[in-house]
Amino acid sequence: METRPTHEVNFDLRRSFGSNLKSGFKETFFPDDPFRRITGKMSVSRRTRNVLEYLFPIVQWLPNYDLKKFRYDLLAGVTIASLAVPQGISYARLAHLPPIVGLYASFIPPLIYTILGSSKSVAVGTVATASILLASIVGEKVSPVDSPQLYLHLVFTSAFFSGIFETALGFFRLGMLVDFLSRSTIIGFMGGTAIIIILQQLKGILGLKHLSANTDVISVLHSVFTQTNQWTWQSAVLGIFFICFLLLTRFLKNKKPKLFWVSAMSPLAVVIFGGLFAYLVNGDDHGIETVGPLKKGLNPLSIGDLIFNSQYLMTAIKAGIMTGFIALAEGIAVGRSLAMLNNDDIDGNKEMMAFGLMNIVGSFTSCYLTTAPFSKSAVNHNAGCKTAMSNFVMSICMMIVLLFLAPYFRYTPLVALSAIIVVAMIGLIHYDEAIEIFKLDKFDFFICMSAFFGVIFISMDVGILLSVFLGIVRTLLYVARPSTYKLGKLHNTSIYRDIEQYPNCSTIEGIIVLQIGSPIFFPNASYLRERITRWIQEEAGFDQNFIQYVILDIGGVTSIDNTGMEMLNDLGKSLKKKNIKFVLSNPKIDVMEKIKMSKLMKTITKQWIFLTVDEAVTTCHFSLGKVDPMCIIVGDGTKEVE
Amino acid sequence: METRPTHEVNFDLRRSFGSNLKSGFKETFFPDDPFRRITGKMSVSRRTRNVLEYLFPIVQWLPNYDLKKFRYDLLAGVTIASLAVPQGISYARLAHLPPIVGLYASFIPPLIYTILGSSKSVAVGTVATASILLASIVGEKVSPVDSPQLYLHLVFTSAFFSGIFETALGFFRLGMLVDFLSRSTIIGFMGGTAIIIILQQLKGILGLKHLSANTDVISVLHSVFTQTNQWTWQSAVLGIFFICFLLLTRFLKNKKPKLFWVSAMSPLAVVIFGGLFAYLVNGDDHGIETVGPLKKGLNPLSIGDLIFNSQYLMTAIKAGIMTGFIALAEGIAVGRSLAMLNNDDIDGNKEMMAFGLMNIVGSFTSCYLTTAPFSKSAVNHNAGCKTAMSNFVMSICMMIVLLFLAPYFRYTPLVALSAIIVVAMIGLIHYDEAIEIFKLDKFDFFICMSAFFGVIFISMDVGILLSVFLGIVRTLLYVARPSTYKLGKLHNTSIYRDIEQYPNCSTIEGIIVLQIGSPIFFPNASYLRERITRWIQEEAGFDQNFIQYVILDIGGVTSIDNTGMEMLNDLGKSLKKKNIKFVLSNPKIDVMEKIKMSKLMKTITKQWIFLTVDEAVTTCHFSLGKVDPMCIIVGDGTKEVE
Repeated sequence: METRPTHEVNFDLRRSFGSNLKSGFKETFFPDDPFRRITGKMSVSRRTRNVLEYLFPIVQWLPNYDLKKFRYDLLAGVTIASLAVPQGISYARLAHLPPIVGLYASFIPPLIYTILGSSKSVAVGTVATASILLASIVGEKVSPVDSPQLYLHLVFTSAFFSGIFETALGFFRLGMLVDFLSRSTIIGFMGGTAIIIILQQLKGILGLKHLSANTDVISVLHSVFTQTNQWTWQSAVLGIFFICFLLLTRFLKNKKPKLFWVSAMSPLAVVIFGGLFAYLVNGDDHGIETVGPLKKGLNPLSIGDLIFNSQYLMTAIKAGIMTGFIALAEGIAVGRSLAMLNNDDIDGNKEMMAFGLMNIVGSFTSCYLTTAPFSKSAVNHNAGCKTAMSNFVMSICMMIVLLFLAPYFRYTPLVALSAIIVVAMIGLIHYDEAIEIFKLDKFDFFICMSAFFGVIFISMDVGILLSVFLGIVRTLLYVARPSTYKLGKLHNTSIYRDIEQYPNCSTIEGIIVLQIGSPIFFPNASYLRERITRWIQEEAGFDQNFIQYVILDIGGVTSIDNTGMEMLNDLGKSLKKKNIKFVLSNPKIDVMEKIKMSKLMKTITKQWIFLTVDEAVTTCHFSLGKVDPMCIIVGDGTKEVE
Repeated sequence: METRPTHEVNFDLRRSFGSNLKSGFKETFFPDDPFRRITGKMSVSRRTRNVLEYLFPIVQWLPNYDLKKFRYDLLAGVTIASLAVPQGISYARLAHLPPIVGLYASFIPPLIYTILGSSKSVAVGTVATASILLASIVGEKVSPVDSPQLYLHLVFTSAFFSGIFETALGFFRLGMLVDFLSRSTIIGFMGGTAIIIILQQLKGILGLKHLSANTDVISVLHSVFTQTNQWTWQSAVLGIFFICFLLLTRFLKNKKPKLFWVSAMSPLAVVIFGGLFAYLVNGDDHGIETVGPLKKGLNPLSIGDLIFNSQYLMTAIKAGIMTGFIALAEGIAVGRSLAMLNNDDIDGNKEMMAFGLMNIVGSFTSCYLTTAPFSKSAVNHNAGCKTAMSNFVMSICMMIVLLFLAPYFRYTPLVALSAIIVVAMIGLIHYDEAIEIFKLDKFDFFICMSAFFGVIFISMDVGILLSVFLGIVRTLLYVARPSTYKLGKLHNTSIYRDIEQYPNCSTIEGIIVLQIGSPIFFPNASYLRERITRWIQEEAGFDQNFIQYVILDIGGVTSIDNTGMEMLNDLGKSLKKKNIKFVLSNPKIDVMEKIKMSKLMKTITKQWIFLTVDEAVTTCHFSLGKVDPMCIIVGDGTKEVE
């Protein structure tokens, strides 16, 4: 039997501090390696072109653009424009803004996105969740009913801060912050928001004049059922009819995906039909309220309306950051999902800057927060868009609407808008995903439900912050309580695996093999020391001299900090006092570099650090004079002699 | 060549939700398994006894206590009492409290600790860092000079909240929170605090009447050097003499550890000698200020003095929690280090409850915050204490001091106290450890320095909070940017290792083996997808069809959440579109359970999940029809035919 293995741990590798720092910095902030375009051998013109292509993705696709692609983009652009009109008006109402502001938001921002956007399928527009969140934060400070002008300007200001925030996140490569909104949080938040938005629509559908200012379920239902005398049946009948029609077209689309355009056009159809109907029957006199006058004309400049007055500044910043963050999370998620369907990649940080600049320019031109709404982008993708040109087409359509058609939308019944919102929101309740989460991971489900119930019963910001907080707590718990395993050997192999997972693994008397599967650092160092000590105590039972070797497989330890090194060193010294040999196996590159430089190297010594668990066990086994080297204990406790 | 390995992944294992939850809960909150004492077969009386032993550790050691042990504890108790008098008076002055309060703190709290403490070597007392932090937080709200009574009562109230907070942490098993104060933070914080405390002593040594209320270096030095006319040389000479004497005794102790008692007794010697000197030369008239009158008598009750008035409540709670946390961190760290020297273990959560109850009772009896100071506990350990009885002995000594000797300490010169503090603080500046941290880990050093410079140049709470915040950011960065490795095979083995670490590993054309060494969950899921995609792109170069198999070794993935599962599933689907086979190897138990239940199982299918990388590679290699199965590429790019 050989006592030293053929392959040893590579202690000679030496990486300089500079290269370590550089690679760490790069992985943290530039995981997509954007500089590969301008490094290496290339001409100045090529380099300039690459930089331009990076900064303005339009430079990349426009030179190869042709009529064939335009045909697809034209169709997609017109389709999303038909969705933009009713959605724009509806969501502006959700945000307590004049309906025309919703139309403005689909004119200027898509132009910016066409130039800067890196996604092929994303369609720009306003979203329901951010609209209602904006209304709830800004509405707390300024009433949209009492001072509509101030409220409007505050909303523009918060869009400006959203833009600054999003641009900064992208510029400083902090895209990873968005990752802290987990899928579970987003699903819970969207579901909860959808429900409170649907409840808000009871106002439009039942033809009520007032509704509770609070968004939680209890306030809204209380408000609705204390005004039963104000319910108007005409409005309700029309609302239910529209909802059924919209659901039917969606059902059709699900059955025959090629008919997606029926579903995409149906909101516009509802608006047009509803408007005609209200015009003909003189709806306002029969309990069917309409949108009211809409001014013709393009976006007025609003750069002078931004409010940087200290009284309102904090509200604008809070609203800007929170809604910007939510909008960004939705936009990035939509961009990523669609890119995946296209077998394509998008650059998160660049998208953030595109969204940010779009919102800054938007806030100067009477637009409120825009992002990439899921529904519109999915329709855009289904309609076969090839490039960001479809956004340009939509923008042109909206220009025509703003210049010539806007006044005709004055007859749109509010109930039609409510019906459109209700059906859109039903699509955001992913109960099937929630069930899947429940099956897979109870803590994730808890995070999801905390967002859901937080939004429904308290308020939207509390719901999302609570859920993000729980997510971070969970992250820290993961880190503070890493898994440890006791390993055993699979028969006739040199493979060591967790004995809980592979119960017929065998172990050797006097040698315990433990595995740590996580970086060792300050939040978990003392837990790990206690846990390892407990593994040893449990193994030893009452016989203090039972264990002679502790082999720690640190192949899963990808990094270690100063507290962790100190812990291993302390552990080694305390085992030494108990006459137990402390052995390490398979240190990873970062860990090995630190062990080399530390006191631990003296405590353990090089020859007790092995490349594999099997080599460590073989060597320990050979050194174990007392025990018959061939006698091993099988998992269930019976002895076996090979 | 066999295509299926002999050992397969164990998919049959089934753990119930209940048992998973239970084990997760236990590892998180009860890693020390305290209930093992009362489960299993044992009589009721045995069980009661075990519970009593758990709650009151004194029940455990008192029955076996004998005179031989008492001799050691008596010596240790007297030694630490001799340290308690000067330290108590000095630290009370640091906290701007009447000197007698410092003596009270060494009478009642040690009694409580004797009953509840689980450490053998810990000695109870006040600490410099928490004292000055307390003064800086409470002093911001209430001036100790203008309203000393209110200030004193607020300090008692904050000790009460410290106690409640510490007890709650222990009771709810949240001891892990203390782990978030990393070694680097503590070393930086202690070093910074030591420096500002030493600077504060310039007041006593130079005989100044007033000093800046701010603790930062610049304010203090400015204050000292603008009052040069007030410096008194008598005081300065005496101060330097005392400092030299104390440093000499410490030097002696370091040379001959057996003479530790010389160093331990020296502060008392300085106090007594200084007092005699001041009495004889009538020091107060010659620029040598003294402590002033001290009342005889035991701790008066202060339970009625606690202030729960809303005006001061938040300050008391903030001061209580922050100082309690710092004191706890020092106490637990001291307890752990000494336990390790004794080859012993202490129970962190139980210690927290002991400290907490000690502070609650203390706040009722005119004591301020106490914990286990490092200096006193180390002296206790060196003096050979055997049980917590040494605290009882110290308490009795203090009772005698309070009842009979207190008035004699009125002549203690302030400069003597300052000298004692300066020398104690010099011992807290661990510059050697800071150098070690710098060598091992630059980010850790940055965390350490942020605490150090934050404390020195801004304020103590900013320093520590900044450092803890950076520590948590680092934790989240670790989590958000886990390491990934490309693996290769070591010659003539079935061992796969990181090709950066082992450059002569060989890889096979068309197969890329990647390894993830961290849990996969929402903060890192999209980074991992991007990183894996980039590995594949880098490997493939311009030839899209180059790679046919991606083997992902997830042996280091100890857990996975819903976002992570979704990411793996998306990755599998997107690879499938590119005609690349996605293969997994070595799923850990938690991950395997989730894969079994998820959509991923359908995307990958059971037969492409292997127990080891080698088996995965062998199978892929065999299926790779096109490529000569024996042709491998060696690390440096040359081909090699086996």
